[in-house]
Amino acid sequence: MTENTGKGASRRQFLAGAAALGAGTVAASVAKAAGPDPLITEVQEWATGLGDGVDATPYGLPIHFESDVRRRNVGWLTADTISSINFTPIHALDGTITPAGCAFERHHSGAIELAKEDYRLMINGLVDTPLVFTYADLERFPRENHVYFCECAANTGMEWAGSQLNGAQFTHGMIHNMEYSGIPLRTLLEEAGLGAAGDLKDKWVYVEGADASSNGRSIPMEKALDDVLVAFKANGEALRKEHGYPVRLVVPGWEGNMWVKWLRRVEVMDQAVESREETSKYTDTLADGTSRKWTWVMDAKSVVTSPSPQMPIKHGPGPLVITGMAWSGRGAITGVDVSLDGGKNWQKARLGAPGAKNALTRFYLDIVWDGSEMLLQSRAHDETGYVQPTKKQLREVRGENSIYHNNCIQTWWVTADGKAENVEVS
Amino acid sequence: MTENTGKGASRRQFLAGAAALGAGTVAASVAKAAGPDPLITEVQEWATGLGDGVDATPYGLPIHFESDVRRRNVGWLTADTISSINFTPIHALDGTITPAGCAFERHHSGAIELAKEDYRLMINGLVDTPLVFTYADLERFPRENHVYFCECAANTGMEWAGSQLNGAQFTHGMIHNMEYSGIPLRTLLEEAGLGAAGDLKDKWVYVEGADASSNGRSIPMEKALDDVLVAFKANGEALRKEHGYPVRLVVPGWEGNMWVKWLRRVEVMDQAVESREETSKYTDTLADGTSRKWTWVMDAKSVVTSPSPQMPIKHGPGPLVITGMAWSGRGAITGVDVSLDGGKNWQKARLGAPGAKNALTRFYLDIVWDGSEMLLQSRAHDETGYVQPTKKQLREVRGENSIYHNNCIQTWWVTADGKAENVEVS
Repeated sequence: MTENTGKGASRRQFLAGAAALGAGTVAASVAKAAGPDPLITEVQEWATGLGDGVDATPYGLPIHFESDVRRRNVGWLTADTISSINFTPIHALDGTITPAGCAFERHHSGAIELAKEDYRLMINGLVDTPLVFTYADLERFPRENHVYFCECAANTGMEWAGSQLNGAQFTHGMIHNMEYSGIPLRTLLEEAGLGAAGDLKDKWVYVEGADASSNGRSIPMEKALDDVLVAFKANGEALRKEHGYPVRLVVPGWEGNMWVKWLRRVEVMDQAVESREETSKYTDTLADGTSRKWTWVMDAKSVVTSPSPQMPIKHGPGPLVITGMAWSGRGAITGVDVSLDGGKNWQKARLGAPGAKNALTRFYLDIVWDGSEMLLQSRAHDETGYVQPTKKQLREVRGENSIYHNNCIQTWWVTADGKAENVEVS
Repeated sequence: MTENTGKGASRRQFLAGAAALGAGTVAASVAKAAGPDPLITEVQEWATGLGDGVDATPYGLPIHFESDVRRRNVGWLTADTISSINFTPIHALDGTITPAGCAFERHHSGAIELAKEDYRLMINGLVDTPLVFTYADLERFPRENHVYFCECAANTGMEWAGSQLNGAQFTHGMIHNMEYSGIPLRTLLEEAGLGAAGDLKDKWVYVEGADASSNGRSIPMEKALDDVLVAFKANGEALRKEHGYPVRLVVPGWEGNMWVKWLRRVEVMDQAVESREETSKYTDTLADGTSRKWTWVMDAKSVVTSPSPQMPIKHGPGPLVITGMAWSGRGAITGVDVSLDGGKNWQKARLGAPGAKNALTRFYLDIVWDGSEMLLQSRAHDETGYVQPTKKQLREVRGENSIYHNNCIQTWWVTADGKAENVEVS
């Protein structure tokens, strides 16, 4: 009865658990079907009793079976939790949208609580009329919706020093991808009037948050007028406190540090401020001790999320879904390659949907695994023609002193028993 | 200092709260700026103290200020909460994605708790080899991601008897829109082999859930082989318990009752079962007492979500964002019209993004409100050329005995003080 006698090249023959039922075992007799599996031969309690009613809680949480899928504070990473990080559990997710409840967050002086009534946004500096907006004011401007990824510049930063963290959540989880609703920053700047700024070509905006860190960053006017959003919703609902409630900046394709939370001020300036956050931090020290500056854009990158160290293969040889995600701050992802042998040979992965600008793309490679060990890698291509580099290529250009902007190809060593480990290949 | 002296047709002149600052009030002096608003003239506690650290909770919830944005059980609607409904708070959402935590749910015998380890899916009936899949088996099949809306056939059903419920959440909130990840049902049917079914043209599948209601429904084979998904994730993460964890059926564009939760069995049959859920329920009684049957598809529909009874206008005349959502089970939304005068005159709304098949579309109409009362309506068009009907047109065809499939144009009467009410226009 449990014999897995598939026909031809059917996937069925590989599935250890997919039990073929005897002929004649049809609908009415399911509960009585012969076979060793009590879950199909016996009536289950959940098929006869009543479940829970609605509204047990005002806002739903994941079922307790999924309690391991959680944003996670790694105690050793930072001195305290006030200036620290939560990682998206990307190993356990599929599709592209990140639920807000487990979406990456990073605070520099803790997540503040700021009511809409207490919220003010100032636009000042080289504008015709400096303005202060209340939250209610902002709700009266035309708004847009876009799905964008937000990645910390330090995502994968530990990899500069070698393969350190064993899990995609920790190597690549400082990223989320949500549908943001907000007002183009351009609209608010034009409301204040940019005549006073003269030639906009060399102008900047300086943006800062209402928290104690203020996290001020300079953004070239060209970007500010292009696609930056003053956002108040993510995935349809109000921003979570830890994502900047009630208003954050969205800077598509650029490093997450610039997506200022609890946005309180935008100043039009004739030069960059060169704040702490863009000098001693968020610059990339090269081999010769000098630093790359204004490294705003997040280059094309990808990672296999399953199998991965937190998502081992739990079955023997046969059909295996390899999946991961790819993204680029320079435009849409056009393709992803997957290698099973550490980059010697590459196969074209299937994209879950055509790539969209500055948004995550899900990819799949459906293989028949022969049960031997693999050196799993993925390699992203974006619409500019850029190809995600190897760790070696990146080090040749950038040295090993960097913290930020590590977009190298990631390698998981998958052993014959299905376990996976973070390794480097030469 | 607080004079709102905008220039030309600037939106600024209308904004009661957008205070223009005096010239020379720039960056360094924000905290000391002259003006009556202590929120910009005084240093706030959140700008000097530390906020909360990360990982205060393993999975984030909305900030407490948003506690009114919640799925909601209306006690009077059903005799008990076991067979009842939670409504998406659509009035408070923007964009298109519905967060799982507040996404519409409906149970017929309560939400059951079913662990992945205990999950089994049987494919039987007219198949070459009846099969039983474990959850781990399903994870080994190629999967897809699609954003689809799920709407209860009874959504807006109370409107047949006149304008009864005062709030978009209650008239139109039995809908959600999530990114589903799953396996095409076609894949699993082909795995079992459809040779035994002979000519597939007149064949059906009967699908049922593992809960006590079983909620069995018949689906024509043509649809089953087209776009139906056996889904295990929504918005990237595992389905919530109340949405059918660990596996539910996704039947794009068709009534929510067919999206069987806790899916346990798919039987290939040579006729429809004519179960309770497709005879005494989920059919539409016409004026002459006969019933429309197999009314699976959700026709094009739309609703203004703000302003609406739960989202009154809280400001005077001037710029006003009118927004809502539109959807169709027959294909993509191609346009939405908005009327301010109960359908006499229509304006073309701006779509947040081009319509996608069987997914919600967000629309906006940005107006300068003159402060007079409005009879707000929206009217959806889909790619088949179908136009959302008035309530009168719908009643002429369908009578007033129906419960299900009310896709009429909704009217909100917005008074000069900004309050909104559910009304009928002749």
